[in-house]
Amino acid sequence: MNVFGDKWTFTSFGESHGAAIGGVLDGVPAGLHIDLDLINYELDRRAARKRHVNDTETTRKRDVNDTVTEAASYGTSTRAFREPDEVEWLSGVMDGVTLGTPIAFIIRNKDARPEDYEFLKHSYRVGHADKTYEQKYGIRDYRGGGRASARETAARVVAGCIAKQQLAAKGISIQAKLIQVGAETDPAKFADTIEAYRQEGDSIGGIVECVIEGLPAGTGEPIFNKLQAELAFAIMSINACKGFEYGTGFGGVTQPGSAINHISGGIAGGIADGTPVTFRCVFKPTPSTPKAGVKGRHDACVATRAVPVVEAMTAMALANLVLS
Amino acid sequence: MNVFGDKWTFTSFGESHGAAIGGVLDGVPAGLHIDLDLINYELDRRAARKRHVNDTETTRKRDVNDTVTEAASYGTSTRAFREPDEVEWLSGVMDGVTLGTPIAFIIRNKDARPEDYEFLKHSYRVGHADKTYEQKYGIRDYRGGGRASARETAARVVAGCIAKQQLAAKGISIQAKLIQVGAETDPAKFADTIEAYRQEGDSIGGIVECVIEGLPAGTGEPIFNKLQAELAFAIMSINACKGFEYGTGFGGVTQPGSAINHISGGIAGGIADGTPVTFRCVFKPTPSTPKAGVKGRHDACVATRAVPVVEAMTAMALANLVLS
Amino acid sequence: MNVFGDKWTFTSFGESHGAAIGGVLDGVPAGLHIDLDLINYELDRRAARKRHVNDTETTRKRDVNDTVTEAASYGTSTRAFREPDEVEWLSGVMDGVTLGTPIAFIIRNKDARPEDYEFLKHSYRVGHADKTYEQKYGIRDYRGGGRASARETAARVVAGCIAKQQLAAKGISIQAKLIQVGAETDPAKFADTIEAYRQEGDSIGGIVECVIEGLPAGTGEPIFNKLQAELAFAIMSINACKGFEYGTGFGGVTQPGSAINHISGGIAGGIADGTPVTFRCVFKPTPSTPKAGVKGRHDACVATRAVPVVEAMTAMALANLVLS
Amino acid sequence: MNVFGDKWTFTSFGESHGAAIGGVLDGVPAGLHIDLDLINYELDRRAARKRHVNDTETTRKRDVNDTVTEAASYGTSTRAFREPDEVEWLSGVMDGVTLGTPIAFIIRNKDARPEDYEFLKHSYRVGHADKTYEQKYGIRDYRGGGRASARETAARVVAGCIAKQQLAAKGISIQAKLIQVGAETDPAKFADTIEAYRQEGDSIGGIVECVIEGLPAGTGEPIFNKLQAELAFAIMSINACKGFEYGTGFGGVTQPGSAINHISGGIAGGIADGTPVTFRCVFKPTPSTPKAGVKGRHDACVATRAVPVVEAMTAMALANLVLS
Repeated sequence: MNVFGDKWTFTSFGESHGAAIGGVLDGVPAGLHIDLDLINYELDRRAARKRHVNDTETTRKRDVNDTVTEAASYGTSTRAFREPDEVEWLSGVMDGVTLGTPIAFIIRNKDARPEDYEFLKHSYRVGHADKTYEQKYGIRDYRGGGRASARETAARVVAGCIAKQQLAAKGISIQAKLIQVGAETDPAKFADTIEAYRQEGDSIGGIVECVIEGLPAGTGEPIFNKLQAELAFAIMSINACKGFEYGTGFGGVTQPGSAINHISGGIAGGIADGTPVTFRCVFKPTPSTPKAGVKGRHDACVATRAVPVVEAMTAMALANLVLS
Repeated sequence: MNVFGDKWTFTSFGESHGAAIGGVLDGVPAGLHIDLDLINYELDRRAARKRHVNDTETTRKRDVNDTVTEAASYGTSTRAFREPDEVEWLSGVMDGVTLGTPIAFIIRNKDARPEDYEFLKHSYRVGHADKTYEQKYGIRDYRGGGRASARETAARVVAGCIAKQQLAAKGISIQAKLIQVGAETDPAKFADTIEAYRQEGDSIGGIVECVIEGLPAGTGEPIFNKLQAELAFAIMSINACKGFEYGTGFGGVTQPGSAINHISGGIAGGIADGTPVTFRCVFKPTPSTPKAGVKGRHDACVATRAVPVVEAMTAMALANLVLS
Repeated sequence: MNVFGDKWTFTSFGESHGAAIGGVLDGVPAGLHIDLDLINYELDRRAARKRHVNDTETTRKRDVNDTVTEAASYGTSTRAFREPDEVEWLSGVMDGVTLGTPIAFIIRNKDARPEDYEFLKHSYRVGHADKTYEQKYGIRDYRGGGRASARETAARVVAGCIAKQQLAAKGISIQAKLIQVGAETDPAKFADTIEAYRQEGDSIGGIVECVIEGLPAGTGEPIFNKLQAELAFAIMSINACKGFEYGTGFGGVTQPGSAINHISGGIAGGIADGTPVTFRCVFKPTPSTPKAGVKGRHDACVATRAVPVVEAMTAMALANLVLS
Repeated sequence: MNVFGDKWTFTSFGESHGAAIGGVLDGVPAGLHIDLDLINYELDRRAARKRHVNDTETTRKRDVNDTVTEAASYGTSTRAFREPDEVEWLSGVMDGVTLGTPIAFIIRNKDARPEDYEFLKHSYRVGHADKTYEQKYGIRDYRGGGRASARETAARVVAGCIAKQQLAAKGISIQAKLIQVGAETDPAKFADTIEAYRQEGDSIGGIVECVIEGLPAGTGEPIFNKLQAELAFAIMSINACKGFEYGTGFGGVTQPGSAINHISGGIAGGIADGTPVTFRCVFKPTPSTPKAGVKGRHDACVATRAVPVVEAMTAMALANLVLS
């Protein structure tokens, strides 16, 4: 199924090289002013759109619509000359204000040229979901990854941005950032580290940390729907994410209880305690690299582009818990 | 809410010092023979029941019904003279065979003596959920932890064991084990390591690894309900669990793509690829230690008792995905 | 599945001749005082318990636990010497006040004597669900109807009474009554009408009308979850119910728009308009009659006992819409 | 919420005078050939598109996009010069075959001219949902009914037609027809009866009967999700529907058990018994008539256009029960 949430819900649809991707939000209350500029800003963050100028034609074709791989479409570079994603609002908003009815939107896929993907019709790419889709459905949209493409996360960013605006109105903020690239933990050196891997035709993973502030004490359900379980579910659904931890996390395993029991991570018994909630998640390196035989400029560290998606999924998880 | 799953569902109920804990399973098909001995065996694993003989009276009172803390009721020791948990089946089973109707069961709380907990009526225990429950509900069952008690996991173990039996009939097996205690990774030395922390009146965390074999390729949904997201949700709902990872996990962050991209962890694009699925999760040390002012024999490493609970939650997550 | 509601939920379990019937309520807020006397009163209404003195022994055995048929256990008469249903509360309530945690309760089945039903092991009763259960599950609890027994509605009445108490605290009241028995619409003559059918060894249907007052304008969802759709779903789930209508109903078909368009039935576009909501539902006659070969005193009009069940289901439908 | 179903799901969106109406289907399996002609045929049935030629300009403006009222857009007449509804497929289908991914589609609203509705900005229409929407949301799309417009049912017809195609592949057929108009039960006289009401500037209700054939015995859940409850929920969500009955229905109330207990209506204990399932539903007359002050040609009997919507909702209810 393709729905996130059960009270505040987001339904995602669209293949990366079909007519459009998009989504439907249900449960957003009436009367909210939507800041469209903020949505475009978040889409640009995800697309890392402003930076790149000299991609090869080969790369440009491959990258259009983010379709290369589960992972490859995040990154600090590569998408030159690209038009920004344009959101078309179909319903639920009148004069910039929500009506309380379902909000549907689409982002058209441009310049899709499915014929460029004919060569994938009868082959699976290493490290991608091509094969499991075919195992599951017996059929797949071979045109550039279909639903498994990271392009699908653009729709999440739109939905998450509306959730963030609702949360902000309640004093709840979400801030994610990259805190580690490979073994490097000094942000000043991230760009150089990534560039070094790119030069080698290789790629590297990263860790994103996210801090939630202003979450009311009492948020979360005590047994199965613990706050940390809801967050883990949301975050682990992001392409290329391989782990989630909060509070003392995995690192805490070497520390005695006497040293770390004061650390709550903002949650006790599954319920927010009113202090900031901090969690971390890890993204693997993209498999689409020159070293692996994929030509053209590549995303050497997809974790960089995951940052706004982490915020979006966090916002949707919280919207479902506190806004409905 | 207190329901796990949406097709194969388990509803959990019961306070640790109320009349009983228990649950209702809905969606278990008719005609399944339930192995009651296996359920009792799993309950004993969780209770670590057979080992201990000389707890102090103080401890015995505190530990009855597992109520001490979110974390403390797991462990390699401590529950002397305890009667085994006895499951009473209320519905859904006739002559040991399921009817296709809801399976309800209870485990009575014995010797609860709520008066022993009067002292908690107006105080919160450090590192426990006492305060957040009161923040959420404005009221709490102060008798030994209520729903936040690890005793609640006994009901999960019963439900998970039925799920395991259903999965086994389809050739799917689940096997969890402790792979790290503190910094120690040699299983031969876990007991000594734990004993050393106990001697110091302290506690230590641990990491549990779980392997799923026989899961059909195609299991899992590609977008939000990715297999790894469903597993993370199930596992992060266990008391004291602080992190979840699969495949290359957090450790993979220092490795280049060229070194680790062949590792799938059994999942691609959120969908099982037919190879074994392996994940790990970390449990923090209990806050209830002599060093923290709690008297009596204590569970120096609750991760040991988490092992059957990890299997139970994994089984339920898979049951909901493949058995309904 | 055996769950009603998605926010305020009630899970029902139990075979009529197993150990117990019961249920779990999830989503009832903390701090509600439960009026246990009111629950017992509603159970007596459903059981029509106080009236009867001279049933034959044959009937008494058959009727214990309400198991005779889908329909037969409602009625104005018949259950002599019966002990009242006793509710045992297992969780979620402390000192008569809800904790915000799941409320589990059971009603033990007394004097079940499943051996009396051995004769049903290999036969289906006419007009009952024996055969469809076996078609669905390949197995059934032949002991007196199992889950298809009207006894299951006792658990609904308990749950519905808690919902009613919550609704009453918000100024919402629900009142159902019998308005037609056969062709008779004068309540003063209902008893005689029913008695006449009983004398003939036959049975007769009835119509129940229900009025909801105090429902806030705006209750209900405009498209699929229209208030009338939610009510119809709840009411049509009652054993022996064959139809639901509100506002102008079926009778309105012969009236021109100009004559009846002022009648809203309390709902416009699926949403409550703040005026009383009135609906009607019809119950078929029981198939278990002397005329049909079933011996002993019988329920000649099960619609009479459906009245508290109609209120209970209405209360649960509204609880799910307005209390969660 | 705007979702129908929980396994086979349809999410509906769109205001009648916004950019588009549309929907997302989730849970349709991969590999289904979609018959687009059949979908267009069903849309024409709902729009009653082929018949009319000489509507007044006033009527044409009012009727564009079906927006007049909850009820008025069904009917045997009136929509001259109208372009057929054109479905644009956005995702989930490649070369006419489903991919197993969400199927999203839109129908653009043409010639909407919201300025024609300015006069409604500060007034409520009698018998419509204008006021309850505003009570619920505090805001409404005053342009021609918004979501309350019967135009929304066009999206249901598209989704239902896909469900019907899936069901047909399993040998399940659904056939609805008008069986009563006012007091008239002879189909040969329906047209004249309706025309007579139109001449008087008035309107009249009707009863639709629907027969499901080929439904496997065992379909339906025995307690809350009885087959009749699921059907009633689906049907009562249709605009202007005021009642649902099956089997002996309301008419059976005057018959003794001995006369009607052999009638199952295709369902026993909530579960299909393998025989045809027959139900009936009633539609009220439109409030938008010359007699009520609404000018122009009007739909004198909206029940006629409800027929394909009844089939669509039935198909979706069954798809959710048997196809997922």
